[in-house]
Order: sequence, then C-alpha cells, then structure tokens
Amino acid sequence: MKRRTFLQSSAALAAVPLLRNTPPGAALALGASQAPLRVNGARLNGWLAKFDSVGRTPTGINRVGYSDADLAGRAFTLDLFREAGLNPRIDTAGNILGRLDGTDRSLKPILIGSHVDSVTDGGNFDGPVGSFGAIEVARSLREQNVRLRHPLEVVVWTNEEGGTVGSRSAIGHITPADLDKVARSGKTIREGIGLVGGNVAKLSEAERKKGDLACYMELHIEQGGLLEKAGLQIGVVEGIVGLRWFEVTITGFANHAGTTPMDQRQDAMLAAAKFAVAVNEAVRGVPGRTVATIGRMVVSPNTTNVIPGQVVLTVDLRDLDAAKITHFTDRFAQIGQEIGTATKTTFDIKQSVDTAPAISDPKVMAWIDGAAAALGFTRQRMPSGAGHDAQEMSRIAPMAMIFVPSVGGISHSPKEFTKPEDVVNGADVLLNAVIAADRAST
Amino acid sequence: MKRRTFLQSSAALAAVPLLRNTPPGAALALGASQAPLRVNGARLNGWLAKFDSVGRTPTGINRVGYSDADLAGRAFTLDLFREAGLNPRIDTAGNILGRLDGTDRSLKPILIGSHVDSVTDGGNFDGPVGSFGAIEVARSLREQNVRLRHPLEVVVWTNEEGGTVGSRSAIGHITPADLDKVARSGKTIREGIGLVGGNVAKLSEAERKKGDLACYMELHIEQGGLLEKAGLQIGVVEGIVGLRWFEVTITGFANHAGTTPMDQRQDAMLAAAKFAVAVNEAVRGVPGRTVATIGRMVVSPNTTNVIPGQVVLTVDLRDLDAAKITHFTDRFAQIGQEIGTATKTTFDIKQSVDTAPAISDPKVMAWIDGAAAALGFTRQRMPSGAGHDAQEMSRIAPMAMIFVPSVGGISHSPKEFTKPEDVVNGADVLLNAVIAADRAST
Repeated sequence: MKRRTFLQSSAALAAVPLLRNTPPGAALALGASQAPLRVNGARLNGWLAKFDSVGRTPTGINRVGYSDADLAGRAFTLDLFREAGLNPRIDTAGNILGRLDGTDRSLKPILIGSHVDSVTDGGNFDGPVGSFGAIEVARSLREQNVRLRHPLEVVVWTNEEGGTVGSRSAIGHITPADLDKVARSGKTIREGIGLVGGNVAKLSEAERKKGDLACYMELHIEQGGLLEKAGLQIGVVEGIVGLRWFEVTITGFANHAGTTPMDQRQDAMLAAAKFAVAVNEAVRGVPGRTVATIGRMVVSPNTTNVIPGQVVLTVDLRDLDAAKITHFTDRFAQIGQEIGTATKTTFDIKQSVDTAPAISDPKVMAWIDGAAAALGFTRQRMPSGAGHDAQEMSRIAPMAMIFVPSVGGISHSPKEFTKPEDVVNGADVLLNAVIAADRAST
Repeated sequence: MKRRTFLQSSAALAAVPLLRNTPPGAALALGASQAPLRVNGARLNGWLAKFDSVGRTPTGINRVGYSDADLAGRAFTLDLFREAGLNPRIDTAGNILGRLDGTDRSLKPILIGSHVDSVTDGGNFDGPVGSFGAIEVARSLREQNVRLRHPLEVVVWTNEEGGTVGSRSAIGHITPADLDKVARSGKTIREGIGLVGGNVAKLSEAERKKGDLACYMELHIEQGGLLEKAGLQIGVVEGIVGLRWFEVTITGFANHAGTTPMDQRQDAMLAAAKFAVAVNEAVRGVPGRTVATIGRMVVSPNTTNVIPGQVVLTVDLRDLDAAKITHFTDRFAQIGQEIGTATKTTFDIKQSVDTAPAISDPKVMAWIDGAAAALGFTRQRMPSGAGHDAQEMSRIAPMAMIFVPSVGGISHSPKEFTKPEDVVNGADVLLNAVIAADRAST
C-alpha cells in the first residue's frame, strides 16, 4: 500500500504539517489548525455489535480471562488486527500486539490499546471500546495513507479484569505468587498465560522499561455517571485513583437479645453501623473526590434474637491524591478506636490492597484535550475511579486516558452501554491525539 | 407413707397453720410467721450434675426437642417423677405430668414446672433447674409429710425451645400448620409429638381451659445479668415481654465503588447503618426496659468494590408494655422513611413474629415475694426478656415466675451456669410460694 510520510520540521513540531490522501492520491497538508481526521465509525461499531455475541450468556457477557469465551474473543480480535494490516504477535505474557512502523527509526513507539476480557456477568463495552478503537485508529491511519514519524503500537492486554495481569507483566510487576493465583476461569494465571499463547518461563521478554515508550494512551468507557450528568462528550483523565482496601474486624460479645439490657451490650453490629456512618461522614466532610465504600459485611452469629458478637466489614478507599489516602487511613483508625471505646467493642483494621494513584502526564492530557477541542467536543478533566491497564503503564511512560460516557453510569453489568456516537467520538479523539503525540514527542 | 393434712381455718387463710413432721412423727405447727420449709438442695443439685451428661457434646448441651438426647432427657426425668412418687403420665401433647392429690377435692390444681429440652449448643440450666426444682418441691412436701389442700401438679413441657410447643398445646394454640413445621431435630412437630408419647389426633385432650388451674409458677434461670449485677438472689418476674420481629428490606442501587461519587450513591449499606444507629438511639432515648436488636444482616452483592444495592436486616423488639411495642413499631417505620428519603433508598418493613406481653398476676407475685422474704433472700421485681412456657399459661391462669441468677448473664451457651446455692434458693422459694398459694387460693 502506498504511504505518505510526515514532512518534518525540527523548528516547530506543533506546526508540522501532516500529509494524507483525500481522495486517495491527492496530498493534503494538515496542520494543527486544520480539520482533524476521522475514523471509520460505522466499521468500529459494527465490530462491537458483532463482538456482543462472544461470551454472551443469559446473565451478561462472560469473557473472564482464560475462559473459552476469552479465547474466542482474542481470536476475534486477532482477526481485526490482521484485517487492519497490523500483523499481530502475542508476547510472552499473552498480550496481543500490532505495529505500524514510523518514518523515524530513532523514535520510541506510541502505544495505544485496552483489553477484551470481561468481569463475570459484565457488558460489551468495558475494554472492547478502547481495544477496537485503537485497532480502528491504526487502520484509519493506514487507509488514509497517514504515516507517523513514531512507530504506533496497538496492544490488547490479557486478563485486565483479573488484576491487570498483562500490563503488570509488561512492567515486570508479576511475582511467582501472582502466577499461582486462581483466576475467575478456575485456572491459575500461570496456566492461563500459557493457554493464551504466552510463556511464563520467558515472561521478562514481555517487559518494557521506563523510557521505552513515547507515551501510552487508552480509550475507555467512563464506568461512572459524571460525563452523562454534566452532559459532556469526552473525559480527559487526570489519573487513576489510588486504592486501599481495609478489612475491619469488630469484636463484641454475643448475647441474648431479650435478656441483655441496652446499656449492658457489646453489640458488634451497632459498632459496625456507627463506623459505617462515621466513615461516610468523614469522607463527605472533606472537599474533593475521595470515595469510601463499605461493600461487604459478615455478621456472626447473624441470628434475629442474638446480639452480634462479631462483624467483619470491608472499606474500599480511593483518591487521586496519595496524601488523602494516608489522611483517611489514619482517620478510620481513629474512628474505630473512638467507637470501640463507646460501644465496648474492639476494632482490628488490616490493609489488604494498596495501589498508589497513577497520575496522568500533562503533555499527553494536552494532546487529548487539543484533539477533542479540534473535533468540537465538550469535555472535562476528571479522575478515573476504576483501575485500568493505563495505571500500570504510567509507571514507565507518560500516560493519559480518554473517557466516553456510560449510559446511567452503569458498568460491570449486562446493562452497561455506551452510545455508538460516543464510541466514535472517543476513537476520533484517540486518532487525533496520536497525531498530536507524533508531532510533539521526541 | 404417713401424711398430715392442713388444719383449716376459713376465717384467716393467711394464718392457717401447716402441719409437718420434724422430726418424723412430731407435729409442728407452721404459720406464715414460722420458719419456712426447705427442699433437699443436695439432691436437687445431684440430679442436675448427673443430667449434665445427657446430650452433652463438645459444643454444648444438645437436647433439642424430639432428638435422641431429648428422649434420653425425658427418660431421666420420668425416673425422677417416679422416685418422687409422682406417678407420671404423658399427655397427648407429649408433656410429662405428675400429681399430688390435695385434701380438698373442690379446689383446682396448682401447677409448677418447666422444660428439659435445650437449644442447639446450649447449657444444662435453662429448663432443668425449674423442672427438677418442681419435682423436688413435690418430693419434699411428700417426704416432709406436708399435705396441701389443692392438688399439686408438676409439669415438664415438651419442646419449649422449639416454640413453647407443649404449653401452647395445653392452651389450644397449636395449628395444623404448626404441626407441619420442621423442628431443629429434623422431624416435624407432628412426628415429634408422637415420638415422645403424645397423640396429635387427640391433641385437644391435653388442653386446659381458662379457670382450670389455681395458678402456675415456674422457676427458671434469669438468662440475663440483672440479678448478678445488682447482687440479688431472687427475681420476682413481673411478666414476660412482648416480642415483635421485623424484616427490613432496604433497596438502593448497586454500583461501582470507584466511579460513583459519594453524592450520587444509593447505598443500601449506608442506609442500613443509619437505620441501626437510629433504632438504637430511639430505644435508648425513652426511659424503660425496651430492647431492640439488629441481629441479622444480609448484604447484596456483598463485594468489597461494589456499593451494596440491597440489605435485608432484622429487628427484634421487646417490652413488657404493649403500648411501647406499638410506639416503637411506628417509630421504626418513620425512621425508615426519613433515612430512605435522605439516602435515596426504599425501606420495606414487614412484621414476622408478634407475641403479646404476658403479665404476671399480682397475687402470685406476692406469694413468691413473701416466700423469698421469709427465707431472707434479697430480691427485685423484673421482667423476663426471654420467652417461657409461663407466657402461654398466663393466658389461662394466674402466673408468675421465680428467677435465679445466671453467672455472667450468659445463657443458650455451653458457658451457661447457675451456682448450686442459687438453684437451691430458687427451689426453696418455689416450695414456700406453693404453700402460700395453697393457703390463699380458693
């Protein structure tokens, strides 16, 4: 296929004109002020519609990592890579990678992509939108005879929903203990990586080092309701929040619900309830976007006529600001101590998960923002409350993400839905952000 | 065996002298002001100690109604009836009954007793203390050649812990649906009654009508910690609290713990916690002895990183005053509505169990109080927070109960314990209360 290359200008990268054939063969100079490119939106949504039947069950999409449906989803995806001329390969971690060479062999790759595995009983948009969007961006560049200076790599990470396994492997953050964990498919991660075409014995070959990439960008559905509520088309993700999980064991004394006067109780349920209310008030009392959730509670003995002797509950705490996570960790411990004293119970608080915030790169955000502006899309900067492969890539490369609205803010559910026009908007922003990155990055 | 009868005085029943042989053969006049009788305390505690091996398992006493251990416990008890000369019979409901005839054939029986079945993983005192105490009272009267004017009946009710089945049968409050319920033993109540020697086809033959009994008295361990805390020996039970159970279903909306801002949540867990705190504050804010317990909570989906969409919890509400139960029923509904509005959740409150308070008879309480006073025991009037067969008997006869302290207020537990001297104190009070009842009742 015939290709045009960028006309280089070392003086002003932002003004470097971009050549493309529209109509084919007719060179068109494209500057920062010129009309942005567009992906083939109908094709992209067609892929998503077709993909909806892969792993579809009566209770939702079930393409959990290493399952038969995941393998079917990967086969579908590999075909899209091939049709796009991306000549896919599978790295030793099981990630699918394709590449468009750039004109300048000295430049590092721009990496774009997402994942195609799902949660249990999930939807068809969390992952595929960004994966297929990235493939479509590469295909559009190729079809529109736009040749970047940088290599463009497209990645579909393996087993994102099982703990960003593919992207963590790519930054060398997988331990032997991680490999022995049993994934939702029932297979260990070690078995799963082999099953999808990786090789755990050579896992380090999948690794990227800090500085190996020009940048990483990921298109994803928001999974929350902020964009929809604000009536905006695009979210420019400032970072992925840090996450800390706590397991709180509250010990009181189980006793007869009829014969124990109210002032002689050591009621673990009452203590748990007071804790839940206080945690909520503490977080809401400080301005910002901290979220804290008590999602799980196990009561013992959990019988109508017995005062609970023990409650185990979890707290999920997230913020983009690591200092806030530290602040609330201390605050929760203090609340537990105060309520323990007041209710004659004891609080034992253990941390189980602890992920640092992943802050987006200002330049990458600016490229995304500029692309959205050029396309005329309304937008805002916002954190991602959910985890993504992008958080792993932020450890080794300048990173930012593009969000498109989720209808009703619903995700990880069969009701998950993003409108076709929003899918296309997101891919268009990714396409033009890639071009901006190509112009600006060295 | 030689017996003496009461010398009758129609003028002043309270002053009727009571004849007994101490030493055997030497008549001794006993008035209200005279020394009270005593049971054979060592024998009574010996029975309890021996009974501790019946149904004893590594996790506690397991003599649940209709189990093999219950049958063994009943066989043990029947022997005690026989040894006491009580010529036991089993009524059609499966209750064990023994009788000492009185001197006046026109008088109705005084009924005393309790039960010998246990909860799962219970102790050896809840039930046996009052059952063996009643047998010992009858045996002591016989041995001490004291003949009452009234017949004295001793009853050991069947399957108290499974819902006062024997005593409810005795007041005609068992429905065919009740008979079909599966008891903790795995057998239906219908099967169980047959197994213990009853006959469900003739259940009505076990019934007592209102007015059939002079009175009913039951000795029982307190099962709470009021007596121990107050340092008192005897509780004179003013009544058995009414009980109402509520099942509260709180519906919010399950959503992502990371992507849903705090002000956009419909968090069923937060609503449940606020409800639990508010119910506790409401009950503690009104003077009295109302108790309310949230013993059970089932959270959905109960996952660390998902905001709970539904919580089902139970409230156990008890008070001796039916008006207070009505008041708090209304108050809980109001609290649910307020919290539902504030948290964007809905509260659906259903009543599942509803038992009216059973108020003790002032005369019967006075006999118990007088007996305890004559014996020099410290005492107080108090409600029973737990249910008892006595609550059923209160519907057809003047009723009161005698409580003795539970160490640490613990019951329905292998740790349940009542000191031997407290067991004897209780039986001594029962003995002398029976004598007072015999003098005073017509």
